[in-house]
Amino acid sequence: MNPLELHEKYQGKLEINSVVPITTKEILAKVYTPGVGDVCLKIKEDESNLSKYTIAGKTVAVISNGTAVLGFGDIGPKAALPVMEGKSAIFKEFAGINSYPLCINEKDPNKFIDIVKSIALNFAAINLEDISAPSCFEIERRLSSELSIPVLHDDQHGTAIVVLAALLGSIYLTKKDNLKIVVSGAGAAGTAITKLLIKAKNENLLSISEIRVFDSKGLISSDRENLPLNKLEIANLTQQTTFVEFNEGIKNFDVFIGVSVPNSITQENIISMNKNPIIYALSNPVPEIMPDLAIKVGAIIVATGRSDFPNQINNALAYPGLFKGLIENKINQVTDSHKISVAQAIFEYHKPYLNYDSILPSILDKSIPIKICETLKKNL
Amino acid sequence: MNPLELHEKYQGKLEINSVVPITTKEILAKVYTPGVGDVCLKIKEDESNLSKYTIAGKTVAVISNGTAVLGFGDIGPKAALPVMEGKSAIFKEFAGINSYPLCINEKDPNKFIDIVKSIALNFAAINLEDISAPSCFEIERRLSSELSIPVLHDDQHGTAIVVLAALLGSIYLTKKDNLKIVVSGAGAAGTAITKLLIKAKNENLLSISEIRVFDSKGLISSDRENLPLNKLEIANLTQQTTFVEFNEGIKNFDVFIGVSVPNSITQENIISMNKNPIIYALSNPVPEIMPDLAIKVGAIIVATGRSDFPNQINNALAYPGLFKGLIENKINQVTDSHKISVAQAIFEYHKPYLNYDSILPSILDKSIPIKICETLKKNL
Repeated sequence: MNPLELHEKYQGKLEINSVVPITTKEILAKVYTPGVGDVCLKIKEDESNLSKYTIAGKTVAVISNGTAVLGFGDIGPKAALPVMEGKSAIFKEFAGINSYPLCINEKDPNKFIDIVKSIALNFAAINLEDISAPSCFEIERRLSSELSIPVLHDDQHGTAIVVLAALLGSIYLTKKDNLKIVVSGAGAAGTAITKLLIKAKNENLLSISEIRVFDSKGLISSDRENLPLNKLEIANLTQQTTFVEFNEGIKNFDVFIGVSVPNSITQENIISMNKNPIIYALSNPVPEIMPDLAIKVGAIIVATGRSDFPNQINNALAYPGLFKGLIENKINQVTDSHKISVAQAIFEYHKPYLNYDSILPSILDKSIPIKICETLKKNL
Repeated sequence: MNPLELHEKYQGKLEINSVVPITTKEILAKVYTPGVGDVCLKIKEDESNLSKYTIAGKTVAVISNGTAVLGFGDIGPKAALPVMEGKSAIFKEFAGINSYPLCINEKDPNKFIDIVKSIALNFAAINLEDISAPSCFEIERRLSSELSIPVLHDDQHGTAIVVLAALLGSIYLTKKDNLKIVVSGAGAAGTAITKLLIKAKNENLLSISEIRVFDSKGLISSDRENLPLNKLEIANLTQQTTFVEFNEGIKNFDVFIGVSVPNSITQENIISMNKNPIIYALSNPVPEIMPDLAIKVGAIIVATGRSDFPNQINNALAYPGLFKGLIENKINQVTDSHKISVAQAIFEYHKPYLNYDSILPSILDKSIPIKICETLKKNL
């Protein structure tokens, strides 16, 4: 059965069930009128009772406007829904978390924020997904500060956490240090990865000597004209002052982290890198370079975002446990420390099993969300 | 276990499950990246594929702003959520329909409409619920005309359908004709009941000589000053030109249909009605008069909205089957003919079992949604 046939057979991937079997009038009178009236009044009396007595206390919304879906870009909210529904299915299957997908037909960031705020009461946390940069930054910042539940743009932070976990494993295996890292792509994921790597460097978790971030035009450097604010921030954070093209700028670097588009790195680029380079080609569903091509020219570790190659770097390794941990530990604001501790938890858990074809645990390992949850509890 | 304990035990009444067990990387690669990309592109190509491949094709949204919840009035969207979640549980338990509750924190009708329109793509139908009159009329009218999925304010039409079914049964039992009917309450339900009864009269399904609709001030008649538009329409439809107070206006009438507030009819009122009056006291959770008090003064049939008394008139008898029928038969606009045929289906199904304490089938009878669905299919 191919993906289309599977989706047609089940008409999507989710179903909504009653947890209370309504078999008698007595039960009906408790879940619905008149008994449900007692619950309404209890919430009216004290709104914090909402999470105690309703689905709102245990459900993550997966919300998108469809402006940056997988590697396809702005394909709209309808075409985005299968991805959100898939995330919700993964939430339940991997971490036992209830989750509901909602695609919103609104591109204007302010209007989008208002809509999300008006429906946020129904949820315990919000996973923003597949929203294009730069508006994703402002949307996440405002929703995080204006809502009392955790809000996380997973394309940014879920990806950054798993990349950091992968890098901790790759460095442990290859014993590299003074890393020179190229990040290809300055969208949501590229920005968050860069920031989290710098944070990890500052905390002496990673030995990094330089990070260069490239967009389709070349290096993001402070000498570029008309650089938008979010990219200027990247230039400053990475202390890059002098523009260079990608083919030139990747020479003698150790690590390539691609969160951009297919074919944005060539075999020639890899040959020009330092010996035994580490290549993460995370564009989805088509990676920046196919793994066999990268290996053929000397890459020592190759990872992609896909489940059908070794070394899958996919935020599904982090987000089910992360959101489970946020809800269960009542954490309403996600900090860099939370993210780093989650990455470390994934790395430490997998340390005994690390090898070049297994830099991360299996996405299907249901111990991971539990470990992440425990780590967040310990660091409260 | 009381209602509060039950709601706390289950943390509400719903859960969201994956219908595809994600046990292997191969399955994961179909429900999520890379396989899900094929589904996204198929929908991008032709948006009508959305309902074929996602939960959007099979799920009813139960949407409220919490402005008219049960008999409590405007208790807000948070306190309303237990009711919406209960409706969703009933959708699944009674008719096998997936349904998700969403309370929206927005009272302004135009903004509310815009929000619902921006999330409608995720659903196959919208059940509006517990929205106060008169804005509920405009909200339903606009959403019905501007969206391509069925939109139904169930407090209006679900209630009207079940009242009509109850009345068909009550008349069949009591052999009454030339009915004089009082409707107490001119909100969402009262208005819809009045309109549907007039429609049924015009189609010679019911022998009605007069309908009077009362609000808290008295008869809704065209001689009242400053009558809002929706009430002026009621005055005209019922051809009431001369104001009278409730205590006077109910004298010598045959049927009382209360969709108002507790205590809005007294034993003295019932004594003043024609012999063997029919009393539907549908205010929830506390009826307009308790059944035993009504029976003591001669009411021949008493119905309430509650499941713990005989003769429950509750829209849960209609809406699961109605929405199932709308979705399965791809009906995007609900007409009066649909509503009347649903009421007739309920009445006909129960005809062999009719008695004074059983004017309607049990709300738990799972044959009802199937019968309703068949009826809608026959009348396509």
